Amino acid sequence: MIRKLAAEFIGTFWLVLGGCGSAVLAANFGGDGNPLGIGLLGVSLAFGLTVLTGAYALGHISGGHFNPAVSFGLWAGGRFPARELVPYIIAQVLGGIFAGFILFHIARGTPGFAIDPNAAGAFASNGYGSHSPGGYSINAAFLTEIVMTAMFLVVILGATHVRAPVGFAPIAIGLALTLIHLISIPVTNTSVNPARSTGVALFAGPVAMSQLWLFWVAPIAGGLLGGVIYRWLGQYGPDVTGTQR
Amino acid sequence: MIRKLAAEFIGTFWLVLGGCGSAVLAANFGGDGNPLGIGLLGVSLAFGLTVLTGAYALGHISGGHFNPAVSFGLWAGGRFPARELVPYIIAQVLGGIFAGFILFHIARGTPGFAIDPNAAGAFASNGYGSHSPGGYSINAAFLTEIVMTAMFLVVILGATHVRAPVGFAPIAIGLALTLIHLISIPVTNTSVNPARSTGVALFAGPVAMSQLWLFWVAPIAGGLLGGVIYRWLGQYGPDVTGTQR
Amino acid sequence: MIRKLAAEFIGTFWLVLGGCGSAVLAANFGGDGNPLGIGLLGVSLAFGLTVLTGAYALGHISGGHFNPAVSFGLWAGGRFPARELVPYIIAQVLGGIFAGFILFHIARGTPGFAIDPNAAGAFASNGYGSHSPGGYSINAAFLTEIVMTAMFLVVILGATHVRAPVGFAPIAIGLALTLIHLISIPVTNTSVNPARSTGVALFAGPVAMSQLWLFWVAPIAGGLLGGVIYRWLGQYGPDVTGTQR
Amino acid sequence: MIRKLAAEFIGTFWLVLGGCGSAVLAANFGGDGNPLGIGLLGVSLAFGLTVLTGAYALGHISGGHFNPAVSFGLWAGGRFPARELVPYIIAQVLGGIFAGFILFHIARGTPGFAIDPNAAGAFASNGYGSHSPGGYSINAAFLTEIVMTAMFLVVILGATHVRAPVGFAPIAIGLALTLIHLISIPVTNTSVNPARSTGVALFAGPVAMSQLWLFWVAPIAGGLLGGVIYRWLGQYGPDVTGTQR
Repeated sequence: MIRKLAAEFIGTFWLVLGGCGSAVLAANFGGDGNPLGIGLLGVSLAFGLTVLTGAYALGHISGGHFNPAVSFGLWAGGRFPARELVPYIIAQVLGGIFAGFILFHIARGTPGFAIDPNAAGAFASNGYGSHSPGGYSINAAFLTEIVMTAMFLVVILGATHVRAPVGFAPIAIGLALTLIHLISIPVTNTSVNPARSTGVALFAGPVAMSQLWLFWVAPIAGGLLGGVIYRWLGQYGPDVTGTQR
Repeated sequence: MIRKLAAEFIGTFWLVLGGCGSAVLAANFGGDGNPLGIGLLGVSLAFGLTVLTGAYALGHISGGHFNPAVSFGLWAGGRFPARELVPYIIAQVLGGIFAGFILFHIARGTPGFAIDPNAAGAFASNGYGSHSPGGYSINAAFLTEIVMTAMFLVVILGATHVRAPVGFAPIAIGLALTLIHLISIPVTNTSVNPARSTGVALFAGPVAMSQLWLFWVAPIAGGLLGGVIYRWLGQYGPDVTGTQR
Repeated sequence: MIRKLAAEFIGTFWLVLGGCGSAVLAANFGGDGNPLGIGLLGVSLAFGLTVLTGAYALGHISGGHFNPAVSFGLWAGGRFPARELVPYIIAQVLGGIFAGFILFHIARGTPGFAIDPNAAGAFASNGYGSHSPGGYSINAAFLTEIVMTAMFLVVILGATHVRAPVGFAPIAIGLALTLIHLISIPVTNTSVNPARSTGVALFAGPVAMSQLWLFWVAPIAGGLLGGVIYRWLGQYGPDVTGTQR
Repeated sequence: MIRKLAAEFIGTFWLVLGGCGSAVLAANFGGDGNPLGIGLLGVSLAFGLTVLTGAYALGHISGGHFNPAVSFGLWAGGRFPARELVPYIIAQVLGGIFAGFILFHIARGTPGFAIDPNAAGAFASNGYGSHSPGGYSINAAFLTEIVMTAMFLVVILGATHVRAPVGFAPIAIGLALTLIHLISIPVTNTSVNPARSTGVALFAGPVAMSQLWLFWVAPIAGGLLGGVIYRWLGQYGPDVTGTQR
């Protein structure tokens, strides 16, 4: 169990350091309007690759959740025992916070570094309303986080289904997270992961902290929804004899 | 059968929400000329990843068509029974429309949101002539949609061929859709999928609706062409003893 | 044999239509300085994905060369019979020319379309000196094409080696072509493929035609070099008992 | 052994030529502010693809380290014999230098080519302080290189673990290098590889040479750290009977 929790800690650390790190350090490199920066596309790719690489490296130890909403969704989907939920989530949140801490110490190594707590997306934090990168309302933010997390769980449960091709799940799951960011960074800066939101909100200031509740409630609700949907969808009755593609 | 249709509904929902969602919400983030937006490259990647992730998650349930032109092409290629064509296509179109509906409700959550029905590519709609992103003629649009869909089916039928490496088809098929978008967004905003075109045209206004016919006729014609081509190409005679690479 | 040649024709058609098509239609979308266009990164990705998708779809039929320099290199590496060289190359060149023809008919569907034969990279043609995108000399162009094609063949021969993981070769080979374009588009617009160069040079005008010789000589020389290098490298002596990773 | 060393030479040559070559030739194509260039995202992708393609092609010969810090880390992780460390590292450094030499001869083929030894990132060199692309301090640089290399080794050791899916390691490892570059190019121009740093520093001038020590010390320290972490993490006790996902 200790190795499982260590794997979740390290994997979530990698997710937050890589995803939020690319956003803070490289997205806007060279200043506004400079196409050298990696932009939202690069940040989307970075988030996905943290999960792709982390799942190949650590998935065989802990299952590679790296995300409380995923742990909840896997439980709802009948693939994860309830008794491990709390320790997993604690390890994930600690890993996210440690990543925020390391990222803060790297980022402050450049002259003129400062976090404006009132800026949307400050220190890669998630937000809605005036704290949404594109100024999206709380309703749009809530809807987005629920739908995206639900579909994330559908992909996770489907790609790890016993009839899915073996070994490809980390590719499907990692690139699903890339896809989710390609769609929704403008809306909420994309969470779908309470540990990721918490890890940077602590350093981003009071506005991010005051909006953090939504990035626990909506992703977990979405994760549960996705888990329930796939639990029904992936159920093959005894009369089904279809062969795996 | 109900689970197959649900899988097609969800997969097409994901395709339209992800592909068109990235286009509407993130392609031009920050306004004209801002390199933070994901641009045509990011949209191309998003479309491909919807299929890659959807096929790994749902392909073992329904085959993962998510596209009426693909269902027609698989039928022409001898891989899909005619009697399932109509229910599959209905599920796909409903999934596409539901995605347009959700996307509309997310997109309108930002101040100043408006759809200009006369703008090329409004709400990620497909078009030709004055409604083509690059102003391409109806002939160029028709030729492009036929050729792209035909090649899409060649890749689909080839990558799922019994001699192709097992398990890799969703990667090949998803990235083929990315490739098709990299080439042809400027021409028609890229359809190759009548359900995708329909799902957003309903919200994009009268111009998109009046041009919608082409994005049913040309992709299905291309799909049938690709199916026929590969049916001949992938036929190994009894004298062929080549080993799979 | 007829199906093999048809597969090489279609695969090379796809390579040139997809790679050069993305360059002609989408690289500079919206005009100079518009970040919506896919740029050199998008073109690099498109070239690689034509090979990745084509190799999964058609590789089990013809081997998936789609390139005279690859056929020569595989022959030098001891993996392809000399007697099939000429028919393969003819099929590849015809496929490339047909792609140039289709692309020309799509591209001319936009108002104001014109090919300036004196512009570097006109209609995605390859070139050196004043016809190099970055103004690189003939010596730099020659060196680049040789080294890139040689390394391309090392990857091809290595990834299809009997000890390499099964089924992954199209990913490695396709993404190697993406990598080669990421490096060398500024130098020669990247050929490493005489059929690709020929297919568009016929439409690009007299300058491209007058420089076409280099994009036959250098890639084939590089392909032979890579074939010879790997033939030695991948030879396991009888005393080697290492297990495949 | 000679073939192993040749494979490490060629693989490291490919890593430095491809990664640094894309940075020198294509990152800023068209001049400042031109979105046609591949930017930091394209360079990140190029670095990762050198390893992905090199590992599929050469991994079954030498293990595919291409990096002294990786060789050290694999030794610390109990996967590589100490007696092969020195010859591997010599082959890697020579491959890196040969790549710098070839790249220099390509790059100087364009009019007006010059290397400004005082510019941050000159000839793709690594640096800190005034030689860091984003002006990051030596402390931030050291911390970044240690953490990134440690996580690189965690991914390498995890993805090649006996319980990880077979054949996918080059994808996970290559894309981990892409991810690392997406995060940290602004900080140090990203090394995590002493051979890569050495190969271009020799051509980049005295400032790069005077800072080269950090890009030996920090990556090797990070590699050892990652090796030790995973040695503990991936150890399954006799009471663990979990099945591989």
